[in-house]
Formats: sequence, C-alpha cells, structure tokens
Amino acid sequence: MTKTTPLQPDLPPPGAPDIEIARAAKMRPILGLAEEKLGIPPEALVPYGHYKAKVSHDYIASLKDKPLGKLVLVTAVTPTPAGEGKTTTSVGLNDGLNHIGAKSVVCLREPSLGPCFGMKGGAAGGGRAQVVPMEDINLHFNGDFHAITAAHNLLSAMVDNHIHWGHEPKIDPRQIVWKRVLDMNDRALRDIVIGLGGPVHGVPRQDGFDITVASEVMAIFCLANDLKDLQERLGRMIVGYTYDKQPVTARDVGADGAMAVLLKDALQPNLVQSIEHAPAFIHGGPFGNIAHGCNSVMATRSALALSDIVVTEAGFGADLGAEKFFDIKCRQSGLRPDAVVLVCTIRALKMQGGVARADLDAENVQAVKDGAVNLKRHIANLEQFGLKPIVAINHFVKDSEAEIEAVRAICKARGVKVELSRHWEMGGEGAADLARAVVDELETGSPKVELLYPDDISLADKILTVAQKVYRAHDIHLSAKARRSLEQFEEMGYGHLPVCIAKTQYSFSADAKQMGAPTGHFLPVREARLSAGAGFIVAICGDIMTMPGLPRKPAALDIHLDENGLIQNLS
Amino acid sequence: MTKTTPLQPDLPPPGAPDIEIARAAKMRPILGLAEEKLGIPPEALVPYGHYKAKVSHDYIASLKDKPLGKLVLVTAVTPTPAGEGKTTTSVGLNDGLNHIGAKSVVCLREPSLGPCFGMKGGAAGGGRAQVVPMEDINLHFNGDFHAITAAHNLLSAMVDNHIHWGHEPKIDPRQIVWKRVLDMNDRALRDIVIGLGGPVHGVPRQDGFDITVASEVMAIFCLANDLKDLQERLGRMIVGYTYDKQPVTARDVGADGAMAVLLKDALQPNLVQSIEHAPAFIHGGPFGNIAHGCNSVMATRSALALSDIVVTEAGFGADLGAEKFFDIKCRQSGLRPDAVVLVCTIRALKMQGGVARADLDAENVQAVKDGAVNLKRHIANLEQFGLKPIVAINHFVKDSEAEIEAVRAICKARGVKVELSRHWEMGGEGAADLARAVVDELETGSPKVELLYPDDISLADKILTVAQKVYRAHDIHLSAKARRSLEQFEEMGYGHLPVCIAKTQYSFSADAKQMGAPTGHFLPVREARLSAGAGFIVAICGDIMTMPGLPRKPAALDIHLDENGLIQNLS
Repeated sequence: MTKTTPLQPDLPPPGAPDIEIARAAKMRPILGLAEEKLGIPPEALVPYGHYKAKVSHDYIASLKDKPLGKLVLVTAVTPTPAGEGKTTTSVGLNDGLNHIGAKSVVCLREPSLGPCFGMKGGAAGGGRAQVVPMEDINLHFNGDFHAITAAHNLLSAMVDNHIHWGHEPKIDPRQIVWKRVLDMNDRALRDIVIGLGGPVHGVPRQDGFDITVASEVMAIFCLANDLKDLQERLGRMIVGYTYDKQPVTARDVGADGAMAVLLKDALQPNLVQSIEHAPAFIHGGPFGNIAHGCNSVMATRSALALSDIVVTEAGFGADLGAEKFFDIKCRQSGLRPDAVVLVCTIRALKMQGGVARADLDAENVQAVKDGAVNLKRHIANLEQFGLKPIVAINHFVKDSEAEIEAVRAICKARGVKVELSRHWEMGGEGAADLARAVVDELETGSPKVELLYPDDISLADKILTVAQKVYRAHDIHLSAKARRSLEQFEEMGYGHLPVCIAKTQYSFSADAKQMGAPTGHFLPVREARLSAGAGFIVAICGDIMTMPGLPRKPAALDIHLDENGLIQNLS
Repeated sequence: MTKTTPLQPDLPPPGAPDIEIARAAKMRPILGLAEEKLGIPPEALVPYGHYKAKVSHDYIASLKDKPLGKLVLVTAVTPTPAGEGKTTTSVGLNDGLNHIGAKSVVCLREPSLGPCFGMKGGAAGGGRAQVVPMEDINLHFNGDFHAITAAHNLLSAMVDNHIHWGHEPKIDPRQIVWKRVLDMNDRALRDIVIGLGGPVHGVPRQDGFDITVASEVMAIFCLANDLKDLQERLGRMIVGYTYDKQPVTARDVGADGAMAVLLKDALQPNLVQSIEHAPAFIHGGPFGNIAHGCNSVMATRSALALSDIVVTEAGFGADLGAEKFFDIKCRQSGLRPDAVVLVCTIRALKMQGGVARADLDAENVQAVKDGAVNLKRHIANLEQFGLKPIVAINHFVKDSEAEIEAVRAICKARGVKVELSRHWEMGGEGAADLARAVVDELETGSPKVELLYPDDISLADKILTVAQKVYRAHDIHLSAKARRSLEQFEEMGYGHLPVCIAKTQYSFSADAKQMGAPTGHFLPVREARLSAGAGFIVAICGDIMTMPGLPRKPAALDIHLDENGLIQNLS
C-alpha cells in the first residue's frame, strides 16, 4: 500500500453507523468535481442540490464518437441473506483505483425506497466505502423511481380508461398483463379487485401492485440507448390481449409518448461521489430476478466515454447477475467487460460449506474449504464467458487468517488471482491491492467475451442452455402453461429475444436450501412472461415475490427527524 | 402605461400555445436572480437544475425575526368550468408590480400531475403571464408531490402491516379512514378490495385511492410552520378506530417520523421566475374542496420576510377559496392580507347572467349586468372580512368595450376600484394599472381583517355561519350521519377546529346550476370528516370527487417527445 492515512482522518471509525460516517464525510461540490475528474463542463450538468447532478441529454449525445474506457464487472459468489458486499466492494475498488492514480468511475444501481422502511439496510455501500449524499441516494434520489412509478401508473390508468370508454381494440379485462406499481413494501396490494362502485367507476377486475423496481418500465429505462429508443420500447410493451387473443401494446392505448415525457429528465444519469471524492454514476435499478439487475446503459456508456476505467456491478450472485449482464445487457447494448471481479466473503463460503447462519462468526477453516466448491463453480462459469475472474475477498472483522489463507490457496491452485480487500475498514487504501490486480489484468489480460447462446435457437433451448451451463442442472421442467407461453411468444415473433431467468439467488438450483455446487437437479419453469419493450422473456422458476411486505417491526418505526431536523436511524 | 415594448420582444404572440411562449422565454439562472431580487445568498438555495431552487430550511429559520411585507390575496367570482384566470392574474399582477418598480413576489400552488394527462391545461399561468420552466412545473416539479404520495402510502402500508401482525392497539379493518393516494386520474382505483390471496398477503378489506392533492398530508404540508410542526401534525392524523371506537393515529402505528423524513426536502419552498423574471414561490397544492386550497405557509411567510409585497391566490371562487384562506390559513398561521383582488371575467358574468357556455363569445351587455349580482355578492362577502376588494377584469380578446364599461360602472356605483388587466396579452405592462391600484390600496387602505367565526362556537354553528354569511343560505341540513360525526369530534376534543366546507365551486349554493346570487337555499351536509393533523373538520356537501377520471380522449394521447426530444402538446 502506498499511503497509510485515510483521506478524511476525522471520520468516525468503520464500526460506526453508516449514516454517521456518511454525514461526517466532507463532500466536494459536484460541478467542480465533475469538471476536474471527468472533464464535464458545468453547463452540461443539471444540479440537484450542490452534491448531485444529472448529465444532460445533449452532452451525452455529444460523447457518441469518443473512445471508450475499460469495463470491469463486479459480481459475487452465491450470497448469504445479508449480501456479500458487491456494492461496497465496487465503491471500494473504484476508490482504490483512484487511490493508485487511475482515472476510474463506478456505475451502480439506485436503491429502492420501499425496502429502506422495511428491513434495515440502504444500498449506498458501507463503512468507509460509501457513496454520498447517502440520505438523498437512499430516499428520493432525484426523483427517478417516482418518475418510473408515474409513467407505469399512467399506462395502467389509460388501460382501464380505454376499457371504460369501450375503445378499440377491445381489451379483454381477464387478459390484462399490466399491473400497477408503488415504490413501497405493501403486501396488502399484491392481490386486489379494482373498478368497484358502479358503472361510472370503471370495469371491475382483478389486479395487483408490484414494487417499482419490478416494473418493465424500469428494465426499459436501464436498457434504452437514448430518449428515442426509450419511447419506442415503451410503445412495444404489451398490456393485455383482445378477446381474440391479439396483443395490445402501450402504443395501441396511446400512452407511450406521455410516458416518455414523464421519464425524460430521469433518464439523464446521476453523478455523485464516494466519501473519498471518486466519481460515481448511480442510475436505474431493475430487479435481479424478473429483470436483468444492472444499472442503466446510458450511465455505463457515458462513464466509459468519460473515463479510462469503469467499475460496475450486477445483481445477486454470478449465476444470476453476471449471466444476465452478459446475455441481456451486453447482448443488447454491444458493451463487453474487459475484466471481472468475483466478490466472496469467508461468511458466504462457510454458509455454502454447511454452517448455520447463527454460527458464521466462529472460525471454521474446513467449512470454508468445503464451501469453496461454490466459488470454483462461479469461477468456471465466468471462464465460459471468456473472462478469468479476479477473486476479491471482502474482508469482515471476524475473518481469521487461516480462513483467508485457505481461500488464497484454493484460488492459486485454481489459477486465478485473489486479493483481500479492506475497503470497508480503510476505504480506497484498503482496496489498493485489488485495484492494482485489476489494472494488471486490464493491461495484460486478453478476454474473448462470448455470450452463452445465439439469438436463433428456441426460447426453451435458451433456458436449457443457461440451466445446464450455468446452474449445472440436468434438465429443465417446463410446466404446460410455460410451454404454451413460450410457443405463443415465438409465434408472435419474439423467439429471437434472450431469456431472463427468475429463480432464487441463494442456490445454483431453484431450491434455496441446496448449498455448494449442486448437479443433477432440474430447473422447474412455472411460467413465462414476455417483456416486449425491455426485450427479454422472463422464465419464472419457483415463487418470485414482486411486491415485498413489511416485517413485524419495520425499520420505519425508528426513523424520524431529531430536534435539529437531522434524519435518525436511516441506514 | 409607462412602457410600450414588452421585455422580451421575440416571444411568440399571446395566441400561441402556452408551451411555445414559455419555451421561447429566456430564463435567468435562478441563483443570480434570487440574490439580486430577494437578497438570498446562493448557498441558501438548493438548486434543481439551473432555473429552479428550493430555499433551505436553515435559511428560512434565519428569517424568523425579519419584518414582513404586505400580503395581497387574489380571489375570484364564481368560475366557469374553464376557470377565470386567478393564477394568470396573480402572475400578471406580480409582473405588473415589478414592472412599476415595486419589490414583489408571487406565491402559487403547485399543479397536480394527474390532470395534465386528462383534460388539457396545466397551472402555470397563460399567455404572457406564465411562470417558467413551465414543463418542469407542470410535471414532477422538484418531487414535492411524489414525496407526499410516498409519505401517505407509507402510512397506508404501515396501517395494513399493523393489522397483519396483530399489533396493539387493534385497528378495526371496517373502521379505517386512511386511504391510499396516487397523483394520477384513475377512476378504477376509487373503490377497491385489497389484501386478497390468503393469510400471507394481509387482511382483506375495502379501500380506495384518492388523488394526492386530496391527501391530508398535502394539507398539513401547506399549513406546517416548520419541520417540527410537520412531524407533530403527521403524528396527530387519525387513520382509523379500534373495535371499541378509540381513534388510532399515525403516531400510534409509528409512521410519523419516517413520513417527516420523506417530506424533509420537499417542505423547502420552490423558487422560480415568471417569463418577465419576477420571482415566484410555487409550493404545495391542496384541493380547494376537501382541503383549504392555498399554497404553503412556509412559502408565504418566507416570501413576506424577503419582499415588500407578496401576491398569493386561493382556490376556486371567493366563497370557497377566500373564506378558507381567512378561516383556515390565516387563523392557523397568524398571517393577514393587506389587500384583496377579486378577479372577474366578462365570460363568467355572462354565465352568471344565464348565458349558455356555447354562447359566451357573443356580446351580451344585459347578461353581464344581470350576472354582476354574483360579483356584488363576492364584494360584499369580502367586505365582511374587513377588506374592500379591487376588482380586476381579466381581459379576454372577445370582450366588448360595452361589456367592460358595464362592469366598470357597476363597480364604481358599488364604491370599489376596478381595473382592466391585459397581462395575458401584454405581460406585466398590461397589468400596470392594476398594480398601481394595488400599491395605492396598500398605501392608503386601512383593512381590519376579521375571521368569520370564533373558535369556541359549536362545529354545526361554524358551518351555519359560513352558510348564512357567505353562501347566504337560509339554513343547513345536517344528515344524521354528519350530526353524529360532529358530536363525536367535539367529544374527542376537536370542537375548537375551523370547518372546511366541500361544496361545488360553480354556485354559492350546493347546486352547481344555481347561478347569480341565490338566497333562501339550504346547505345539505352529507358527511363530516376529521383532519386532526391539518386541523380542520371537513363538511361534505353533495358529491365531491376525490379521485378524478380520465376523459374519453385524454390529453396524454397527444403528448410525446419529438425527434429532438422536445415535449409536444403539454399545456
């Protein structure tokens, strides 16, 4: 390590609540930081306060012919329910890259508002590896998700209005596939009946609300290349079917233009900083199961045009997040990563090695070794995409030297680089070794990125390919309903789309309890859904919750403003 | 008039679509404008882009001991369904005041998003009297309404979660009075059943969505003095009753703190400008029927501390808007207006004189004279509050000289000032005569503002007082249900609150078809509701729609982004 003092020596210690560290961090005005670090002139930015800004559509358009920097994907082993710190490691790695003098930006997803008030835990990193202003990022963050909620629900209202007035084409109220959304954990809205009260109050039918991050509008927002592409994709979304089973699109009900108008400002990527003043784009945040789980193409591509290195993350473990990053985001956008970092924690490996969640703090070298089959499976999977991953051990204070050494030995035997990363405790300085390994890989590696399957095989074969090559399943079991849907989508002309598999993130298999590196299992596909605007087919494997509930004691109970108007207990 | 060229000679003519005039207007950066016109230092502002800013809580707190300027209330005669241009006249009068060299600010309500996509018509003024950036103001406008929607729905989710987990106090699902909201015209959500699908999906019950502007959170947002008052008022809101009929508040379910956190940023008033660069605060926008229909106290009081004159508007005609401005906003905040402008249009007087809506363009001097009974009634009502109004004739191009002369003569005979105002056509220059009349009134008038009733008469007597003194009804008819509710509210200790009467805006009576100045009618009170946080009792007279629907051909159908990403057909 080249430096021994952190950038901001007056920060609370890393064990302090994240909000206290974040609030103590001295931020730099974003306009000056953007100009100095990325060369963005102030007039190209739309400020939201003094520490957040959106990069204007005009300026982004002007970047079109700029050479692109190198893209580093951060993914992870199969996670514990607490998560393995992908976001924290992405922030820390970017701080580390800036610390060693590289020109680097991190691209992250925006947190969803709903879960902030449910289980504790925002999504702006942690410890000394955080993006700020943390409160703004975890709450309304420039209104992006609110705009997506409004656009989604405008379409919902227009669908019911279309039916109410008897407009053509006649939508069958029993065959509407477009629900409503709120950015809120609200289980009572999962299954509802609307349009009651008589003929002037609409047509009664069954409906439901999803959380905003599950909206197809969110997925489109994150895959659109620009405003024009956004408006066209919105128009292609299917809201339901006529009585003779013809699809009805958002364009058919006339909502695509007004939706794009609602999303215009939001589609401009948000620029903020880490507590070490490294630039960060935080933009979009689709679900990682029924959608592709990556930040926006607009942000990633803009960052690549503005920086030498771009660090980005994909949702959940590599079986879900990395696979969708390649097969959906890379396929549609043409972007390709130049290196991949595979985050693991000693805790996660112990859990994969059979240790109960309550016992994860105790040293258990054998369990680490046993659980490493999961790590090795993810390494092999990433190699199938043409990249040799760098393993980053995200350090926790309870990790023992012997446990860490076991992972190092396994990685060395497997022929991949491994670095312990202490960004949570030490910020960028703690991730300097990892940063140097990444720079070395970018300079000397020769990735040949390949997607998992071509566009022109059947949808069922695409699901089978992912199941066999990534999940190492023996076969897939399509329900009769799922098979009919896949055939229907192919008949409708959507057979060329990639598949987006919604399964548990806690196992390679569809059974959350199967730890390690299972083989011989079957992937049960219960249902298939068409996201015609986002451009993928969702294969639903098991129970996937698209509207969370609040727990018995929601975090909201403790969140309030103190005497001085400061936010308390948001984390 | 002192000048003959408008400030921006290259603007499209006043007949052009409002959005084209607004877009052609050269705005000034808001930080510089705020410093020059109001003395607000840049660091006291939170910019939202280059042309909008919020005034920080800290800076507002620092204004506490500043002397206050003069407050001018803009109200109107009984409106036509198209509205009589209160907002446009308020913007024009403020431009006129600045044009003649006065230091003046206008305080307006924020437009609601939902109606923008339903019937055409935003709420940022019109012609040459507009506030800008018009698109931002009519769409998400710094996220204020989205924050209110989120805070409201967080409480809704926590109420259902409270019941789901069986927490104390036990709320009776049949006695919940807290609905959900969306800022959308969506009739299918008026009457719904939620919590279906089985025990893990909550408790089934009847529910419904209102539009966000009808939320009690919106009313509180507009009446709160500061963040502390906001959090306390939120805690007092009643969400439902226990099985033994005890009220359950937002504080009882633990939502008040998290709601205040969600509203913290939004509560800072928004500063923008007119197309003539006059400063404008636009903040909050409660319904004018089930709530009090005025912009926020935070904005009005801040403006008074920053400027010599503050022009503000109240919703609907003076029978509703001005009465609530006095009896709710002034009563709670301690603010008092120093002058009042009564907007009338020749069209509205003709309609009050019995002319059908389709025939309003044709000259009809007799109908103007007949309809002037409505104007005279409003003048007399305002005099009851201790203010002699200045009548502003909001000029329309089809108005004839004879019609205008008739109104002038009637006002002169009645002993009140009258001015023709041509701000729509000419901007501030066209409102200079009105501005001079207002300045003259502020310098020479001697208002003795009195509220209509004291706090300590019964709730029924308060309703009766408004009905007799303002609506000139013979009596009120309380339904049995309304009478029981009023008695219950008094027993609960809320008898001291003012009343907020929700009735049609199209007549002094509760019958929208009774034109002119009806007497001898009865005010039927169907239902009474307690807004314990906002601090008023709502008396519902007739059908009041709290969730609008979209029309057969919603405006949204034509709204879209053009080839250059410009918004088309938003108005």
